Amino acid sequence: MRRIRLIVAYDGTGYCGWQIQDNAVTVEGELTKALCTWLQEEVEVIGASRTDSGVHALGNIAVFDTESRIPAEKFAIGINHYLPADIRVQRSDEVEADYHPRYRKTEKTYEYTILNTKIAIPVYDRYAYHIYHALDVSMMRKAGELLIGEHDFSAFCSAGSQVKSKVRTVYEVTVQEEPVPGCNGGSRICIRVRGNGFLYNMVRIIAGTLLEVGQGRRTLQDVEEALASGERKKAGPTAPPQGLTLMEIREE
Amino acid sequence: MRRIRLIVAYDGTGYCGWQIQDNAVTVEGELTKALCTWLQEEVEVIGASRTDSGVHALGNIAVFDTESRIPAEKFAIGINHYLPADIRVQRSDEVEADYHPRYRKTEKTYEYTILNTKIAIPVYDRYAYHIYHALDVSMMRKAGELLIGEHDFSAFCSAGSQVKSKVRTVYEVTVQEEPVPGCNGGSRICIRVRGNGFLYNMVRIIAGTLLEVGQGRRTLQDVEEALASGERKKAGPTAPPQGLTLMEIREE
Repeated sequence: MRRIRLIVAYDGTGYCGWQIQDNAVTVEGELTKALCTWLQEEVEVIGASRTDSGVHALGNIAVFDTESRIPAEKFAIGINHYLPADIRVQRSDEVEADYHPRYRKTEKTYEYTILNTKIAIPVYDRYAYHIYHALDVSMMRKAGELLIGEHDFSAFCSAGSQVKSKVRTVYEVTVQEEPVPGCNGGSRICIRVRGNGFLYNMVRIIAGTLLEVGQGRRTLQDVEEALASGERKKAGPTAPPQGLTLMEIREE
Repeated sequence: MRRIRLIVAYDGTGYCGWQIQDNAVTVEGELTKALCTWLQEEVEVIGASRTDSGVHALGNIAVFDTESRIPAEKFAIGINHYLPADIRVQRSDEVEADYHPRYRKTEKTYEYTILNTKIAIPVYDRYAYHIYHALDVSMMRKAGELLIGEHDFSAFCSAGSQVKSKVRTVYEVTVQEEPVPGCNGGSRICIRVRGNGFLYNMVRIIAGTLLEVGQGRRTLQDVEEALASGERKKAGPTAPPQGLTLMEIREE
C-alpha cells in the first residue's frame, strides 16, 4: 500500500465545500469518485483543509492509499481525465504511510478579494465580494496588524467548531489595493492571511471585521476588545465565501 | 426624445455575443428587454462594439432614445434592477441626438489573457485561455510590435466581415507577464491591444498569431508576410473567446 499526496485546485462555486457528504456534490466526493473509477479500488480521501461551500483553492492537499503501481507523479495527470473541469490536480507525489495532512505543522495562506466599486462588475462576481462603500484601506491594514501573533481566536470562530484549543499563530495579515483595470474606477482589495492554522470561518470573519473597520463602523479598539474577549459577537460578520481562496499550504 | 449613453460591463460566458438575435440570449437583447420593461416604451439599443459569443466587457457603449424624464445619470442604477447579474451598467449620461457609437472616432482597448501553466487552474478557466507549452514572451512582444501602426489588416479578419476598408491603426500591442499567485507555478500573460478600430475577430487572431510565435511555430518574418499578403490563412488561428475582454472605449 502506498500513500499518494495530491495538490488540488478548484473553483468552489458549484460545490457544497470540500468534505464528502451524502446527497451533496463536494470536492472530496468528486476526487473519491474519480479515483475509485480510475483505479478500480475502494479509495478514501483525506484533505488538509475542509473549505466551505463556495470557497476556492489553488493548493489544497489531499492524500489517499492505493495498491496501484502507477508512478507517483503520474497520478496528477491521470486523475484529471476523470474529474470535472472545475477541479484540477496540480501535482502528485508519494508520502510516508503515516503522513496525515491535518496533523502536521503547516503554514496556510488564504486570500480574500474585495471589489470596491460603485457598481458591481460582472467578471469579478465569482471570485470577489462587492462592496459599494469606499473603504479606508490604511485603517484595514492597522486592524489586520492587531491580529498578527499567537492569540486565542475564539472571537473569530463560528459556532460548530469542535477543536479544543482556539490558540493559533497568524504570521501575516496584509491588505493590498490596486486600481480596477479599464474604465470603471474603484479598486480591487486583497486581504492576505497566513498562519499555522485557522478555526472554522476564521479568515472570513477576519475579512468581515476588517471590512467593518474599513467602512468606519468599527474601531481598532473594538478589534482589540473582540480578540481579548473571545466572544464571537464582538467580531465582525462572516464575509461571503466567493471572495476566499486557499492559496497554498506549506509543510515544514 | 433624448438619447442616453450607457457604459456596459458583462460576463460574456452565458451570452451569444452582443448583437440582438431571435432565439438566442444576447447582451443587447437583455438590455433592450430591461429598458422596455422598466420604461414601458419601445426601445432600440445601438452598441459600439458587437462582441462575439463568450467575450467579456468592462466598458462597452450602448445608446437608446427615450421619452422618459428620468435624470440621465440615474439610468445606470435603475436599469440594473431589471438586468441579470452578469450584465451591469456602470454609468449613464445624455448625448446629442445624432450621436452614434459606431460612427465616431474612438480608441478601443482589449485585453487577451492566457494562463501559461502545466495544468489548468479552474479559477482562471472562465477568463483566460490555458496554454500548456512554455511561451517565449519576448518573441511575442516583438511580433506584437510588427502590428503597430496603420496597416491593411485583411489577414487578421475572419470571413463574413462586410466592411469596405480593412485599414486600421493599432497604437499599442503589449505583452505583460506575471507569476501565478500561490503554489502552482507558471504565469499569467496579458496581451493588450489598443487601436482606432478592429475588424471581425481581429484581436483574437492577433492573440492566436502571437501565441504561435510564442510557441516557436511561427517566425517574426511569417507575421510580417501575413500582414503584407492580406491573406487570412497566413495569420494564426482565432484564439478562443473567453480570454478576451473589451476594457475601454475612449471617445475623442
